[in-house]
Amino acid sequence: MTRDTTATDFNTRLSAVADDIEAMLDRLLGTAALPGEITRPARLREAMRYATLGGGKRLRPFLLVETARLFGLEGDGPLRAGAALEMIHCYSLVHDDLPAMDDDALRRGRPTAHIAFDEATAILAGDGLLTYAFDVMADTPTHPDPLVRATLAVGLARASGLGGMAGGQALDLEAERATEPHKTETILQLQAMKTGALLLFGVEAGALMGGATDQQRDALGRYGRALGAAFQVADDILDTESDAATLGKAAGKDAGRNKATLVSSLGLAAAKTRRDALAAEAQAALDALDMGHKTAILAEAARFTVARKS
Amino acid sequence: MTRDTTATDFNTRLSAVADDIEAMLDRLLGTAALPGEITRPARLREAMRYATLGGGKRLRPFLLVETARLFGLEGDGPLRAGAALEMIHCYSLVHDDLPAMDDDALRRGRPTAHIAFDEATAILAGDGLLTYAFDVMADTPTHPDPLVRATLAVGLARASGLGGMAGGQALDLEAERATEPHKTETILQLQAMKTGALLLFGVEAGALMGGATDQQRDALGRYGRALGAAFQVADDILDTESDAATLGKAAGKDAGRNKATLVSSLGLAAAKTRRDALAAEAQAALDALDMGHKTAILAEAARFTVARKS
Repeated sequence: MTRDTTATDFNTRLSAVADDIEAMLDRLLGTAALPGEITRPARLREAMRYATLGGGKRLRPFLLVETARLFGLEGDGPLRAGAALEMIHCYSLVHDDLPAMDDDALRRGRPTAHIAFDEATAILAGDGLLTYAFDVMADTPTHPDPLVRATLAVGLARASGLGGMAGGQALDLEAERATEPHKTETILQLQAMKTGALLLFGVEAGALMGGATDQQRDALGRYGRALGAAFQVADDILDTESDAATLGKAAGKDAGRNKATLVSSLGLAAAKTRRDALAAEAQAALDALDMGHKTAILAEAARFTVARKS
Repeated sequence: MTRDTTATDFNTRLSAVADDIEAMLDRLLGTAALPGEITRPARLREAMRYATLGGGKRLRPFLLVETARLFGLEGDGPLRAGAALEMIHCYSLVHDDLPAMDDDALRRGRPTAHIAFDEATAILAGDGLLTYAFDVMADTPTHPDPLVRATLAVGLARASGLGGMAGGQALDLEAERATEPHKTETILQLQAMKTGALLLFGVEAGALMGGATDQQRDALGRYGRALGAAFQVADDILDTESDAATLGKAAGKDAGRNKATLVSSLGLAAAKTRRDALAAEAQAALDALDMGHKTAILAEAARFTVARKS
């Protein structure tokens, strides 16, 4: 299989999984109340749909679904877990965009949730998605083994809470208010929490659901960590080099805000070197898995992560 | 056992459980990162502690702990589940107090979280508590059976998300903006979601953890539903009759805001009749359990709920 063929396969798969995740999110956010729910208020449900449907590369669910598939697991289970993970990602975008946080009016080329609805509804839609993610993750159809489901819920919470994504956003806001330049070490930790943890969890969740051995989980953890770090440095580079039309959001704003980025800390050239080294590390971790062509899609995912234009 | 003795026992138990929950929350919100967490940022952790420690009757955890105890289950398991439930309650207070929501500056006689810290930190502290609740609920020390832990996580999500508490808050905000008077039916559904669902879940979670039979769970469900409804109508009555010094928050504000309350819908006398009928229904459900003096504490909890002064 040549590199080009694999890249085409990858884009086809990325798009197919995104469609499946979109359909699953649409189904999960339907009108019918589940047992234990009283009713689903229309406006709040609409805001939750607005925040999740109709966009995004669905990279986190893709990593989960493809990692599970590496071990022969397909179907609704990984799609549900992927949709839960995407809900967490989408809630974080809604809350990060709020006036009290990053105060963004544009996201994926559309008005942000608090503009399209109102601020209170945006806060509650974020809360609703965050909560629903754990419902979907822990409920029976996600995996036949309740220990796997409970472990997924705990893992998702660790990746996205105080010691993960939410903590990373708190550190990011503090860094923005700081007047002195940021230490590279501080930025790396902040990024590992804010972005890396959720990408890594996608890989770890797929491995857990698929029944990977400890050794396989270690190698996939290396892969997920490298990919997560590469994603963020690629993002910093994109913000410097791209424009709003391509990104679908305001560009070049990091510098204006004293955002903690690796481009400002290391310089553009060194940031690119780091990005490429992380992509190589991701590839090395997959090679260590020794699963042959089965890991080609995940290898392409790492290349896509560093080469993407938005 | 006379009624007075039981009331004293109840206050002693309520206070003892509150102390245990406080200690558990303090332990859970310590500095040490758990496996899977990267680090716990100091300021965000402090805000989460501020929002949870040092106050509150801990009524929801009390219901959980005492219901589990009815079936002989005591110790850290129910205290962890109770602390998780209290985290959900506390996150909802932090988010409800935000300027875009109820815009409250005072809570339990102290500045609200967004006043004591800042708005962005308050949003993230709420998100962090909401997330951590599912970690605590689903993790191994909470219950030896992973199916129980996964079921607890799903139940907590249903009680607190789109079809429960968060949905109820969304309906409450809509009701506040409405110009016509609110239908009693609308108010009852709103209150069942906003307040009732989480109180009911406390009882249901205790029954599930303790291994109650289906019949026992039905009776306890009746009890929890009646208590939850009684709690809210008692709250509406308190807001009309009490003052800020007793409540530790602004009083009499419901009328000024076109809040959907049963006092405005039914009138004060009918609201009190309803409150007392619900307390009687809670007692009848406990009598149907036929567990003798074992349920005396839960019976007192229902009486306390309607008779409380703050």
